[in-house]
Amino acid sequence: MPAASRTVESRFTVEWGDCDPAGIVFYPRFYAWFDASTWNLFQAVGLTYRAMQQDWQALGIPVVDAQARFQAPCRQKEALVCRSTLAEWRERSFVVTHSILNGDVEAVVGQEVRIWAVAHPQDAQRLQAAPIPPRLRALFQA
Amino acid sequence: MPAASRTVESRFTVEWGDCDPAGIVFYPRFYAWFDASTWNLFQAVGLTYRAMQQDWQALGIPVVDAQARFQAPCRQKEALVCRSTLAEWRERSFVVTHSILNGDVEAVVGQEVRIWAVAHPQDAQRLQAAPIPPRLRALFQA
Amino acid sequence: MPAASRTVESRFTVEWGDCDPAGIVFYPRFYAWFDASTWNLFQAVGLTYRAMQQDWQALGIPVVDAQARFQAPCRQKEALVCRSTLAEWRERSFVVTHSILNGDVEAVVGQEVRIWAVAHPQDAQRLQAAPIPPRLRALFQA
Amino acid sequence: MPAASRTVESRFTVEWGDCDPAGIVFYPRFYAWFDASTWNLFQAVGLTYRAMQQDWQALGIPVVDAQARFQAPCRQKEALVCRSTLAEWRERSFVVTHSILNGDVEAVVGQEVRIWAVAHPQDAQRLQAAPIPPRLRALFQA
Repeated sequence: MPAASRTVESRFTVEWGDCDPAGIVFYPRFYAWFDASTWNLFQAVGLTYRAMQQDWQALGIPVVDAQARFQAPCRQKEALVCRSTLAEWRERSFVVTHSILNGDVEAVVGQEVRIWAVAHPQDAQRLQAAPIPPRLRALFQA
Repeated sequence: MPAASRTVESRFTVEWGDCDPAGIVFYPRFYAWFDASTWNLFQAVGLTYRAMQQDWQALGIPVVDAQARFQAPCRQKEALVCRSTLAEWRERSFVVTHSILNGDVEAVVGQEVRIWAVAHPQDAQRLQAAPIPPRLRALFQA
Repeated sequence: MPAASRTVESRFTVEWGDCDPAGIVFYPRFYAWFDASTWNLFQAVGLTYRAMQQDWQALGIPVVDAQARFQAPCRQKEALVCRSTLAEWRERSFVVTHSILNGDVEAVVGQEVRIWAVAHPQDAQRLQAAPIPPRLRALFQA
Repeated sequence: MPAASRTVESRFTVEWGDCDPAGIVFYPRFYAWFDASTWNLFQAVGLTYRAMQQDWQALGIPVVDAQARFQAPCRQKEALVCRSTLAEWRERSFVVTHSILNGDVEAVVGQEVRIWAVAHPQDAQRLQAAPIPPRLRALFQA
């Protein structure tokens, strides 16, 4: 049973520019909604990108693996709800699962594996996966 | 060994607007390149979207499943090559595999499962998967 | 003084994928919000894209001219309000003005000129500007 | 007569995901191509984003004003050429003009006004317009 702090619901409206010539959502856009929802998970525990950079010396939470199943097409001005859960912690990565409802229909399910990225010691522009900080896990278990 | 007609290479340049505040490609953009490459596969055998609609009574080739592994970040103005292969035909779907090279580094690997979509007999706006037409498979085996 | 039916307010959240490596909204995204807001204006008077196609024999409302002034940068997770007004009817086009507020700050102002597009009589795929139907103007004057 | 260093031509292909349900390019995408072309102008004189940050203490070249006229729709897999010129230097901004050709047809014309942005002295995250460095102008006059 996920605790409230490990699951969030985010709302999106399908816009004209999200749709392709077949009149349905261009599938990469669903990942943009996954991404926005993952940031909402972090925001819900008080962790913004600015705080990541300034207080945690992290560069971000890049995706290293993603999967999705597109079960029903979505169209302009349909209202979507994305339910996202921080489902698993690994040593240097974590898994976020997503389910997008379009009314009563589960239109998309998927998951992202993300790392906790810090600057490479030899080159501040390069990023590398760091061990998940215990206080990061703790934020989601409060 | 894939025949020439089943594999294409597409070139893309990473642009400023493809990158996020961490300075690397926003991962949904890689799927947009997968998608463009899949259309190049079809174009390479002479099948455009207009022809699909007019000569084949198809609505398109929507994605029903996608997976990707992001192995190395890509940055503005890097030149990418996406090698895409029509890897498998199923009864009502097909699989396209993609590998994106950034110089010598394989930055992304992934695959899409797509259906051959036609209009629902009761509602021309709804789409449904149809059996893959034999002459479609034949195009890629020439 | 715009009547309620000629002005709508639309809400958007700036997401990670809307921002560029400088950490601010990639400016083309503001036009996507202009576009979504213009569709909200039409939806507010009951005119959806599906209705345009089926009941009005129109192909859409493409933009032929756009201008914008970007007065203040916007960042991830900032909440924007776009106030959009159907400001002027011309013979074959109309003007929508937009103002995007980020909190108390007017971040962007701009306008779109759009046509009422119908199929070219010789080629259904080609679009051309048609005279604005009187009943379209009437919808916004109710 | 623009010197070679002040004008560049960039090539883009219209992809499926650039197009909307009317089957034509979603107009904000043209600005993404303007943006990519402006970066090509800077790259052509040897000035990358990384160099801007490291050698010039600049945060980027954000757009403060943009205008465009959309004269002809563009469709999937059409090949576009964007001719971009650094047309004018002002005290704290500069103007880039763009013309997008689709075959023989000038599909879009427009311009961007951009500033040379540096960090605000009190807050490194805030950006402000700085006077155009003389050596920047000189790069384009070589």
